[in-house]
Amino acid sequence: MTDSPPQWLDRVRWNSDGLVPVIAQDCHTGDVLMMAWMNREALTLTATEGRAVYWSRSRGRLWRKGEDSGHAQAVRDIRLDCDGDTVLLQVEQAGGIACHTGRRSCFYQRLSAGEWETVAPVLKDPATFYG
Amino acid sequence: MTDSPPQWLDRVRWNSDGLVPVIAQDCHTGDVLMMAWMNREALTLTATEGRAVYWSRSRGRLWRKGEDSGHAQAVRDIRLDCDGDTVLLQVEQAGGIACHTGRRSCFYQRLSAGEWETVAPVLKDPATFYG
Repeated sequence: MTDSPPQWLDRVRWNSDGLVPVIAQDCHTGDVLMMAWMNREALTLTATEGRAVYWSRSRGRLWRKGEDSGHAQAVRDIRLDCDGDTVLLQVEQAGGIACHTGRRSCFYQRLSAGEWETVAPVLKDPATFYG
Repeated sequence: MTDSPPQWLDRVRWNSDGLVPVIAQDCHTGDVLMMAWMNREALTLTATEGRAVYWSRSRGRLWRKGEDSGHAQAVRDIRLDCDGDTVLLQVEQAGGIACHTGRRSCFYQRLSAGEWETVAPVLKDPATFYG
């Protein structure tokens, strides 16, 4: 016999691929760092391990954020939105770098005069790490 | 003849439904207010009108945030993430209420001891407005 899955997981409205979008926000600065996806296993592991574990759609496997780069995210808070289809994490971002480009946040392109302008510096050469 | 669509719109990686997830963040407090979806028309209108216009998946139509409730979002900044598949808005939230439940933010349920605990108050009776 196996334990039945916890009820809180059933409150999440998983999409047709069994995934939910997850926003990671820096718990100190409030910066929105990234958006990624989790399946049930990833969200369960995130809650139990206290670190962000995503589902990589491109690689088709669990992705412990920082597993290669060291840029892990310690999870301080897990929120669910009103209709249960989006999760918000408050995280401590190791190394101060969430983006695979070596920037603090993935949201470094700003719409300005009809162009996406890069407005944040690369803090670390992305050739030296992955994810 | 019609104008060709602006290049910046083609930089967005629209999903198979022609949509992109959009995070709205309060430009003053940094609070993440909500996540919703836009299609090309909605994002174009958001950029040109300077107010958040989403695509309502449930209603199957454009949704000018606040059109009924008055809880509009004036857009101060539009960002795109590294892989082009998520948009982040900085907004001024009219009425200080983004959520249809009458709360400031949609993310008012916090995972605590295996339960989603409601941690933010209703500021306005949702029976008195919509969206």
